[in-house]
Amino acid sequence: MIKELRALIGDDSRVVAGADIEAKFLTDTLGRLKASADALVFALTTDEVSRVMRYACENNIPVTPRGAGTNLVGSTVPLRGGIILDVSRMNRILEVDEETFTAVVEPGVVLQDFQAHVEAMGLMYPPDPGEKTATIGGNIATNAGGMRAVKYGVTRDFVRGLEVVLADGTVITAGSKNVKDASGLQLRQLFIGSEGTLCVITKCILRLVPKPETSLSVLVPFRDLRSAIRTVHAILSANANPTAVEFIERSVVELGERFTGVTFPCPEAQAYILLTFDGTAFEVRANAERVREVVMARGAIDYLPFEDPKEAAEIWKVRGCLVKAVEAVSEQEPVDLVVPINKSAEYIECVHQVEAETGMRMIAFGHAGDGNVHLCIIRGGRSDAQWKEELDRVMRSLYAKAYALGGLTSGEHGVGIAKQPYFFANSDPALLKVMRSVKTALDPKHVLNDHISYLE
Amino acid sequence: MIKELRALIGDDSRVVAGADIEAKFLTDTLGRLKASADALVFALTTDEVSRVMRYACENNIPVTPRGAGTNLVGSTVPLRGGIILDVSRMNRILEVDEETFTAVVEPGVVLQDFQAHVEAMGLMYPPDPGEKTATIGGNIATNAGGMRAVKYGVTRDFVRGLEVVLADGTVITAGSKNVKDASGLQLRQLFIGSEGTLCVITKCILRLVPKPETSLSVLVPFRDLRSAIRTVHAILSANANPTAVEFIERSVVELGERFTGVTFPCPEAQAYILLTFDGTAFEVRANAERVREVVMARGAIDYLPFEDPKEAAEIWKVRGCLVKAVEAVSEQEPVDLVVPINKSAEYIECVHQVEAETGMRMIAFGHAGDGNVHLCIIRGGRSDAQWKEELDRVMRSLYAKAYALGGLTSGEHGVGIAKQPYFFANSDPALLKVMRSVKTALDPKHVLNDHISYLE
Repeated sequence: MIKELRALIGDDSRVVAGADIEAKFLTDTLGRLKASADALVFALTTDEVSRVMRYACENNIPVTPRGAGTNLVGSTVPLRGGIILDVSRMNRILEVDEETFTAVVEPGVVLQDFQAHVEAMGLMYPPDPGEKTATIGGNIATNAGGMRAVKYGVTRDFVRGLEVVLADGTVITAGSKNVKDASGLQLRQLFIGSEGTLCVITKCILRLVPKPETSLSVLVPFRDLRSAIRTVHAILSANANPTAVEFIERSVVELGERFTGVTFPCPEAQAYILLTFDGTAFEVRANAERVREVVMARGAIDYLPFEDPKEAAEIWKVRGCLVKAVEAVSEQEPVDLVVPINKSAEYIECVHQVEAETGMRMIAFGHAGDGNVHLCIIRGGRSDAQWKEELDRVMRSLYAKAYALGGLTSGEHGVGIAKQPYFFANSDPALLKVMRSVKTALDPKHVLNDHISYLE
Repeated sequence: MIKELRALIGDDSRVVAGADIEAKFLTDTLGRLKASADALVFALTTDEVSRVMRYACENNIPVTPRGAGTNLVGSTVPLRGGIILDVSRMNRILEVDEETFTAVVEPGVVLQDFQAHVEAMGLMYPPDPGEKTATIGGNIATNAGGMRAVKYGVTRDFVRGLEVVLADGTVITAGSKNVKDASGLQLRQLFIGSEGTLCVITKCILRLVPKPETSLSVLVPFRDLRSAIRTVHAILSANANPTAVEFIERSVVELGERFTGVTFPCPEAQAYILLTFDGTAFEVRANAERVREVVMARGAIDYLPFEDPKEAAEIWKVRGCLVKAVEAVSEQEPVDLVVPINKSAEYIECVHQVEAETGMRMIAFGHAGDGNVHLCIIRGGRSDAQWKEELDRVMRSLYAKAYALGGLTSGEHGVGIAKQPYFFANSDPALLKVMRSVKTALDPKHVLNDHISYLE
């Protein structure tokens, strides 16, 4: 296989044989799920991706595409061996078209590089998931969300078109620079969020917006979580157009404070809402003032705007470090389930109840503006066997509660390997069957990411 | 077949035999393409839709679903006979959930009724296509756009979930009330805009927003179309967040003036941009002022805000009546192609050139903010044979020019029957093949809207 792949690629250094593959290519960002593969190919062009796929398809070889490998659910763990197809070196920004507010990039472009590039031109790419070193291709494959989703939407809302390579090597472009499209079945919409199970993304046509002129962060401390989350609905109803609306419990803030050395104001609070606004100066001022009225009328302890961008950055540092702060003290399992926005408080209370019942510590925080709850389930001193068994029990219970409230497995991380059993257990078999039939139509031999086996 | 359908439905009055079907059920809103069918069924429940589909699938009977039948491209013309499945009587608003900013409705709910219902509750459903008597199900089936798309997006952006019946009668729900969703393949995104070729929509979970507090319309006259459309880019770059940005040429305005009796200001203009803003009073004021500065710096003849809602409504009446104004004088073929926003002026110039070359009169207007160009191709005194032949030649030329500029067949009307030859001629065969494979996976016997035959 190595010999044949090297002949296809014409550059031996970009085809690595199984035994020589570095460990980091065999896992995701957590590094716990591991597997082995027969070959690792670094593709540089669409044509190379196409040739590798055609070869793999003809020979029934499983293929696991990957970008930066920052996913959290094991999507890039090549459980069935075969070929790892790395597109992270396809990382050119091909065009920024200011006249149509679009950009064309290769899938391996790193999110933060792309954001910086367009911002220097007075534009903005709004999707802003926590992991800034992820690739744009990976963001599209999981329909990554992030904090700015309240105002701007998620990655899907900023993908105008995709060039993709299908399982058999066929190259198609679905979508274009056009704003509206009612011209046939919208395949790009199906490819977005498909976690590498339907195609390999080789080019991305992205939508940009004019860069907002200014932004402002505001911290609002509350006596308890429920009044904090209840207030979110009032904020969303107030036509105040916040960019981000996050919630954090005090106990979680303390973890972040220890990790960063930053001190949050108002330590007597039990919960905080952290908001940002962006836009023109007058919009930001007026929207923030409107929110001040709303929160103070609903029993907030205080309203703390951070006019100084440095101070704002410090506060966001605490929010941004939480996963790392947890990982500094213990292994953890990240969960990013989603519930309808009016169920967030009830869900967090369920989480506390599960904590109390099971003795498994959990850190909850997340995107209050869209019901996307992030949980870190903390391993602590548990042995391998104990952790495995208890974690599974806790996860089953957490997902069942989320579904009982009308929620779903994942808001932005995807299903991957790690969340499959819970997604599978809670989804309508008829719905899964239709997903499978679409998978099989596009990849009849199931070569692409078939370890994501709910599609099997 | 009638006997069996009546047994399935249990209400004879809701199953109409072929010869008794009223003509309006055998066509679209234009009424030019006609066909016949064996039966017309008025379904009232998801279960009835499911039973009809199962029966049709088992017996290889073509099915043409329909709502209000307001489509413009022949999608509801039952070219292959069989069953017309009318869901327009499934027209209940089942729930408006203010806490999650969602509504659940049946597909036959009429757009304007739904808009009025939620607006009375202080909410808004932003999609706003010209045809207000269309059903929500039909809007979703074509991913209807409309004027407010510049700020709010299109129908797709307001669909959280769909209950659908597949060709074999299977009922699934794809999506939910949740804001974010990275839980498996996003089938609802595939169903939106699929023009009844993949499923029958039986329930819609829609996203709402708080109702804006105020709105303002502004008319900006220009000396020529090109400077008008060039200015649109400056407006979109200015962080001024307009809700709608329409363009109309003077010659088209005159047609509207004659039809409505309304007089547009500044008759020396060659083109107008018509904008709306919505939001809080301060936002609207500040955004409009910003646009005033932009347009006056770019050679607009004037800047005319309409503070009085009645005056604003008069101006919009002229824009809104254009298709009807054309139809009052001649049969016309509506085209809603789309080009990248920076190509609108160039495209309109191409249209004028085609007009000059062919002697076929065309009226152009449209959504300048998103490159969605509406053309009415005017039949005038042409005989049937002459019209058929000349229209086809003109259409071929118009679509070829649109594609040459990076455009597409349809921005919001869909492909249907009327636009199939042009969509087919200008699309990558590999892309069409993938669309077909998805169609076949979901509807192996091709019973659903198979007269839309690019999926054949």
